[in-house]
Amino acid sequence: MSLREIRRDLHRHPEEGWTEFRTTALVAAELDDRDFTLHLGADAVAVEDRLGVPSDDEVAAAVDRARREGAPGAYLDRMDGVTGLVATKRYGDGSGPVVGVRVDVDALARQEATDDEHRPAREGFGSAHPGEMHACGHDGHTAIGVGVARALDESGGFDGTLKLFFQPAEEGGRGGYPMSRTAHLDDVDHLLAVHLGLGEETGTVVAGYDRPLSNAKLDARFVGEPAHAGVAPNEGRNAMQALATAVSNLYAIPRHADGRTRVNVGMVAADNAQNVVSEDAQMRVEVRGETAPLNEYMLDRARQVLDAAADMHGCEVETSLYGKTTTFETDDEMVAAVRHAAEAAEGVTTVRDRLPFGGSEDASYLIRRVQEAGGTATYVGVGASNPAGHHTAYFDIDEASLAIAVDVLAGTVRTL
Amino acid sequence: MSLREIRRDLHRHPEEGWTEFRTTALVAAELDDRDFTLHLGADAVAVEDRLGVPSDDEVAAAVDRARREGAPGAYLDRMDGVTGLVATKRYGDGSGPVVGVRVDVDALARQEATDDEHRPAREGFGSAHPGEMHACGHDGHTAIGVGVARALDESGGFDGTLKLFFQPAEEGGRGGYPMSRTAHLDDVDHLLAVHLGLGEETGTVVAGYDRPLSNAKLDARFVGEPAHAGVAPNEGRNAMQALATAVSNLYAIPRHADGRTRVNVGMVAADNAQNVVSEDAQMRVEVRGETAPLNEYMLDRARQVLDAAADMHGCEVETSLYGKTTTFETDDEMVAAVRHAAEAAEGVTTVRDRLPFGGSEDASYLIRRVQEAGGTATYVGVGASNPAGHHTAYFDIDEASLAIAVDVLAGTVRTL
Amino acid sequence: MSLREIRRDLHRHPEEGWTEFRTTALVAAELDDRDFTLHLGADAVAVEDRLGVPSDDEVAAAVDRARREGAPGAYLDRMDGVTGLVATKRYGDGSGPVVGVRVDVDALARQEATDDEHRPAREGFGSAHPGEMHACGHDGHTAIGVGVARALDESGGFDGTLKLFFQPAEEGGRGGYPMSRTAHLDDVDHLLAVHLGLGEETGTVVAGYDRPLSNAKLDARFVGEPAHAGVAPNEGRNAMQALATAVSNLYAIPRHADGRTRVNVGMVAADNAQNVVSEDAQMRVEVRGETAPLNEYMLDRARQVLDAAADMHGCEVETSLYGKTTTFETDDEMVAAVRHAAEAAEGVTTVRDRLPFGGSEDASYLIRRVQEAGGTATYVGVGASNPAGHHTAYFDIDEASLAIAVDVLAGTVRTL
Amino acid sequence: MSLREIRRDLHRHPEEGWTEFRTTALVAAELDDRDFTLHLGADAVAVEDRLGVPSDDEVAAAVDRARREGAPGAYLDRMDGVTGLVATKRYGDGSGPVVGVRVDVDALARQEATDDEHRPAREGFGSAHPGEMHACGHDGHTAIGVGVARALDESGGFDGTLKLFFQPAEEGGRGGYPMSRTAHLDDVDHLLAVHLGLGEETGTVVAGYDRPLSNAKLDARFVGEPAHAGVAPNEGRNAMQALATAVSNLYAIPRHADGRTRVNVGMVAADNAQNVVSEDAQMRVEVRGETAPLNEYMLDRARQVLDAAADMHGCEVETSLYGKTTTFETDDEMVAAVRHAAEAAEGVTTVRDRLPFGGSEDASYLIRRVQEAGGTATYVGVGASNPAGHHTAYFDIDEASLAIAVDVLAGTVRTL
Repeated sequence: MSLREIRRDLHRHPEEGWTEFRTTALVAAELDDRDFTLHLGADAVAVEDRLGVPSDDEVAAAVDRARREGAPGAYLDRMDGVTGLVATKRYGDGSGPVVGVRVDVDALARQEATDDEHRPAREGFGSAHPGEMHACGHDGHTAIGVGVARALDESGGFDGTLKLFFQPAEEGGRGGYPMSRTAHLDDVDHLLAVHLGLGEETGTVVAGYDRPLSNAKLDARFVGEPAHAGVAPNEGRNAMQALATAVSNLYAIPRHADGRTRVNVGMVAADNAQNVVSEDAQMRVEVRGETAPLNEYMLDRARQVLDAAADMHGCEVETSLYGKTTTFETDDEMVAAVRHAAEAAEGVTTVRDRLPFGGSEDASYLIRRVQEAGGTATYVGVGASNPAGHHTAYFDIDEASLAIAVDVLAGTVRTL
Repeated sequence: MSLREIRRDLHRHPEEGWTEFRTTALVAAELDDRDFTLHLGADAVAVEDRLGVPSDDEVAAAVDRARREGAPGAYLDRMDGVTGLVATKRYGDGSGPVVGVRVDVDALARQEATDDEHRPAREGFGSAHPGEMHACGHDGHTAIGVGVARALDESGGFDGTLKLFFQPAEEGGRGGYPMSRTAHLDDVDHLLAVHLGLGEETGTVVAGYDRPLSNAKLDARFVGEPAHAGVAPNEGRNAMQALATAVSNLYAIPRHADGRTRVNVGMVAADNAQNVVSEDAQMRVEVRGETAPLNEYMLDRARQVLDAAADMHGCEVETSLYGKTTTFETDDEMVAAVRHAAEAAEGVTTVRDRLPFGGSEDASYLIRRVQEAGGTATYVGVGASNPAGHHTAYFDIDEASLAIAVDVLAGTVRTL
Repeated sequence: MSLREIRRDLHRHPEEGWTEFRTTALVAAELDDRDFTLHLGADAVAVEDRLGVPSDDEVAAAVDRARREGAPGAYLDRMDGVTGLVATKRYGDGSGPVVGVRVDVDALARQEATDDEHRPAREGFGSAHPGEMHACGHDGHTAIGVGVARALDESGGFDGTLKLFFQPAEEGGRGGYPMSRTAHLDDVDHLLAVHLGLGEETGTVVAGYDRPLSNAKLDARFVGEPAHAGVAPNEGRNAMQALATAVSNLYAIPRHADGRTRVNVGMVAADNAQNVVSEDAQMRVEVRGETAPLNEYMLDRARQVLDAAADMHGCEVETSLYGKTTTFETDDEMVAAVRHAAEAAEGVTTVRDRLPFGGSEDASYLIRRVQEAGGTATYVGVGASNPAGHHTAYFDIDEASLAIAVDVLAGTVRTL
Repeated sequence: MSLREIRRDLHRHPEEGWTEFRTTALVAAELDDRDFTLHLGADAVAVEDRLGVPSDDEVAAAVDRARREGAPGAYLDRMDGVTGLVATKRYGDGSGPVVGVRVDVDALARQEATDDEHRPAREGFGSAHPGEMHACGHDGHTAIGVGVARALDESGGFDGTLKLFFQPAEEGGRGGYPMSRTAHLDDVDHLLAVHLGLGEETGTVVAGYDRPLSNAKLDARFVGEPAHAGVAPNEGRNAMQALATAVSNLYAIPRHADGRTRVNVGMVAADNAQNVVSEDAQMRVEVRGETAPLNEYMLDRARQVLDAAADMHGCEVETSLYGKTTTFETDDEMVAAVRHAAEAAEGVTTVRDRLPFGGSEDASYLIRRVQEAGGTATYVGVGASNPAGHHTAYFDIDEASLAIAVDVLAGTVRTL
């Protein structure tokens, strides 16, 4: 299959974070054929450090679905319920550097547009999974990861070792941290992460996005005591009041002298009859900071608010981290290498050295891990004209960007 | 089928408010056989005054289910998507009074217990409908309604007209009001409503519960403007903040000099990713008052809070009444008649004249309508030893109470 | 001086709670002349149990003012900074019962009207103390206490012991509790408390008000950490946010199944420049309950809210009880005795046995203390046509009520 | 008097914003002697545009105090209750530029330290006005304004016109705007504003502070309806609840994509008895933005919150602007001129071109007015080693900074 065919097949079969079984198995099969050494599932991510993992039932259902939809069973078995793949191959005499390429593979929980305005629908590769969609281009990223392997194989490689990181669960910042907690990054000299789109047109390459916001996502559940709201409201311990007090006070966490901070509550849920004092109310919170300490400040204050809101209404609160990202800076050397490769790549019309990354990214953990061990890293943007914004129902990518990305990344690997 | 068998069949096939198609059709079939004149669906309730009606899809699915589960199609067709039944029969020369008996027929949205502790599960008549349960005894009430018809038919009736009101959607206070807005109550001289259980053991009869709290249930939906919470929180109009502000301030509506008031928020729902400023957030509110004016006070203040909470965060708020009840007093004459009948009924060990009704009841609208036209009414409690409280997963009734209730009610009808 | 002259002299020199030095000294002087045994200051109230006591400076200033305004220095010295007087006298052979009469003596913190509409202003006995006013008739109560002594002396007394309790600081519920914690009530067989007005016209006597609301007044002070709100808001711990969160949540304390509850915040104060995160914010809260346990429920929940509001914003909260009252019931025997005396008293046109006492009263502590020791008590209302409501700037009393009250109380004492 | 003596005399007689009568009159007297043309009071500020003006009584009391404390009556009379002075003098043939120097003259509402740790107390020039203090160095600024006049007079001036702006009420941002709304700035070619201290040691000069936050101060008063909180809380419209809701929601105004924003409530006041539902509650709010539009965003949202908080509790809210500032940038030409002069000035050890101004400044209005008309401006910082921070009770300045400031400013004037 061409990269475009791979991308379209993945687009049609989107899998949310920690359920990317079909995606990972298909990639594993090709790389196995290409003599990569495969580390799958618990060999690719630190299982105990995973965040925001779905229930066992959801995972089992996803494995079943992958099997039904043609994922090679051998790799599914090796994954044993855990997604993630690190694939390694030594080229030449292996005396050169170890170069990592990280791509993320998960889809989003959103319904894709099904009308003819939307090319995937029109051309028959729209999502076959209701409520799931590749609305952030990770289908393309996955294809690019395969493409880099193909390109190096076909061009005779380079003198060094290639490590491909197919990271699960980037959405929500759930997979980067546990992937960074393995030994696979210990010997990586240079790391390249890549993202399509990000507002740039096809032909533009950004050699080094950096300074994303740090981010933490917190799930909270208030547990109180139910009561009949008409007969004896005093006998309840009202999780609903705790929830409301928490929401209001979370947004009121003081702004910080040192830079930008953010807080948001995206989800609340409590579902009782109208005459029942709620014993259970849930919420999902996100905080951000321009720096890791600012993010910590927000997270600490958010926990303080949640605890006090529970106390105020006689409830307990259970919190768990759903996801997290940190910030990073890119290395000049890497930016230069990418620029060099991009200027030589077909289809590239504009190269920009650096741009601030507006959102959050959990490649940050892999990048920092490499840098802490003395390596260098960058986060490459490859323009891909989009008809609609990331994370929307009409998101799509210009598939010409796939070849450009492979050219730029493989070219950079050869340069390093 | 015996009343007990009817009750068990209904218990196994619970139907929530406005979807009681099978229940109503089965009752209609028997009363048709017994030569009652039937008023079904839009002939039994004022369609435009119905509150808290499910979506068309839900109604259609309920009709289908009823058909699959053996409801006679002719009556389903006559209902045409609207539940409710008023059945009338003239006994003797019809020179006597018109006596109404009102029973409610709907089930609750709750999962029934399935373990052997619970008799319906143990004996095989537990709910076959996941998430629905007869947890307030309306299966019994429906059987009692049929039982009264049987009793009067078999005993040679009485000199007058019997009107049986099989009211839908009592839960939430949704069906009483629209049933009270028909002409069927115009000529009712005496009205009897009945409830099993209510904390009394089998053998006890309460001749006149009265003074329930007035009650209103309000659905509210805040509509704002979404935004990326990390990139541009200021561009949103945050429905989540509006919701939280509303909840906190609803509970803070001032207490009232004139008596008891209540307020509760039972449900909240907003479901966005953590990084999205909510454009949509919903809640379900209930207010109560010891009197109708106190209930109005609470409802007015609740609307004021909802409006201001929306304004505060630049949102709109849409509200709709989900249900309502009012208060009532019972008539001495009716209490005396019930006492008289109860003292003669087999199995009755204790008769109490009056007790305050702690909760809310939409039989109130039927009762007041009869009283306003010069008739009299009462609300009869028939003890039924329960292993667990009303509205809980282990609720069940002592079926010996069914015969007692029929005796008391039919006896009262004959007395009047 | 006549009782009317006494009342007018006191009206002109109102003294707030715990500063009633002139009032107490003048009463002490007359009762000393009449051979009462005097217990003053720390001999009349349990000093360590006093609530809501002004600062030492305020007390010292009040003593100085009393001295300047003609209070006999000997009694001021004996009080030693503490107001309160219990005066005892044995009549006859002392074989009869010990009868207590309790009157309260303090004024309110409010500015009296100074225009000619207001009789005290017009006739020259308006308050000479800016911001203080006898707006609840305690000037009359004090005069009545003296009047009872005079009446018994002049009529040859009765066979028993009279104990007059001149209680300080009734306003706010601050003096009743510490006066009840002395041994003076141990041997009281019958206790009479009295209040003028309360909405009744001159000529009406209410033999037994009872069932006041229990009440507690709580002062709270949030202590945080200041910061420059523009430069580094995160460095503050914001007492202002704690205060606001507390106020909102206090009003939202759940209503109670068992009866009426109340909560109010009457005062808030924080006074920083606009650009300073508040380190200090104060509030005054009041809770009430229909019964003592309901009051405790409200007080417990209020403390819970205050603590959590402080925690939420990283502050400390200091609370102190400003005042408290409890509830009581009057004894039939005493009601009958008052009715008997009232029916014989000149000027009495109507006698009512019992009325519910709408507000709160700290005579409750003295009454309960007597009842707990086996004695009986009542709280007598003596009508006194008022041109304006209690606690308002135009409050005044019909002075004809003074003689009626003395007649009723002295008559009751002789009856017992 | 030497500049140091002037500064100490002013330090001893601090006057808050819009009450700087003595200060202004003394300056006017010296400049009159020096043949400056004086514009006083309503001739110096646009009276109708003044913000945060004290009551007539407070102003009258301040005039009286100034008179008692030796202010020359002729100038007090000319001021006619309005402070502010613009003094103009033409030097040489007047063909050169018009150069403005703006100093602020007001003191702060804070109690000065009185112990010997504090030099003003130790050396006898501590504040003689309880609760007022020169805690931001404006006493020094005023002296510097006089010093510039002296320096130019004594050195033979320069070829051009000097305009000295003695601005009232800088604290709170109340005097800059109305002074900017006069014609005096129309012909100013270059404007110099000056501030001592700001964290820099004596010897350092900052040639151009810029980019202060924009700022607005809003006073709000909630007006409701009182009620007895125990008897009939429902009859009130609770200004206290409105206040608390407003405070909580003000801090929760969303952060903004475009830069720093701030919000703070520094003062709240409501003073009722504990049992009274508040009819009146006041607050003082401040908002800031990194740019003028960000400040407007915050101000708009703050008003929205205040309005909705009032609506929520059935109250009205009255708001008035207490003060405001805007932001500005300094001109390169002016920064260069100051650097030039500073390098030549005695005692200057370090010159820095630019620093961001952390707080807010209403010189901003004067600066922008000059720039809008085509002129240039800068805001000069003159280091002055402080023992304690600005706005604290122990604030003091190293008086050696006065001569440095005069040298730098007069030198710059001559340079331009």
